[in-house]
Amino acid sequence: MKLSFEIPYYAVIFTSLRKMDAHDYNQIAERMEQLSRNQSGFLGIQSVREDKGLGITVSYWKNIEDVLNWKMNVEHREAQSKGKSDWYKGYEVRICKVEREYDFGSLDI
Amino acid sequence: MKLSFEIPYYAVIFTSLRKMDAHDYNQIAERMEQLSRNQSGFLGIQSVREDKGLGITVSYWKNIEDVLNWKMNVEHREAQSKGKSDWYKGYEVRICKVEREYDFGSLDI
Repeated sequence: MKLSFEIPYYAVIFTSLRKMDAHDYNQIAERMEQLSRNQSGFLGIQSVREDKGLGITVSYWKNIEDVLNWKMNVEHREAQSKGKSDWYKGYEVRICKVEREYDFGSLDI
Repeated sequence: MKLSFEIPYYAVIFTSLRKMDAHDYNQIAERMEQLSRNQSGFLGIQSVREDKGLGITVSYWKNIEDVLNWKMNVEHREAQSKGKSDWYKGYEVRICKVEREYDFGSLDI
């Protein structure tokens, strides 16, 4: 999963709390990940969710225009709407410019 | 956990893969969280780890100087060193300026 990109680039931090009975979530979440990978400027994605429902997903993008294009993608907007009505108790989204990075070892499980 | 700060502020994204036999990790991780909360410019922290060992922790800071001061804190540096030798197979750190944010509902479990 090693991610190392040319600085500066963009990170979108998506912190969310899922409802426990969110049916059809996995299928559409997978579809959204596929779709984002084909978007212009997509660099990578890292995602972790705990059993209690709290999750953090960070996606990485070449520049701010790529982030905003993905945000406005029609199919993605439908999923966002479903996220509010069906899947999430709450979420926070932060769009950030990555200015520095460093690492150690490897994240490959 | 609702976090909403005056833009721009800073986010430190720490993505890590823990060794499964990392003894004394919890104690020192807790101490580091306490210590960071008392640092100048600390705004908040969000943390998620999966059973397989992959975790994402995002801490939020008022400005870049606060981030760098915390990075250089003596006790924190000792923990960083222990992180490399004992606790983590790998990690990535990204220091980011948060430029936009939006949210929905609440993250309170």
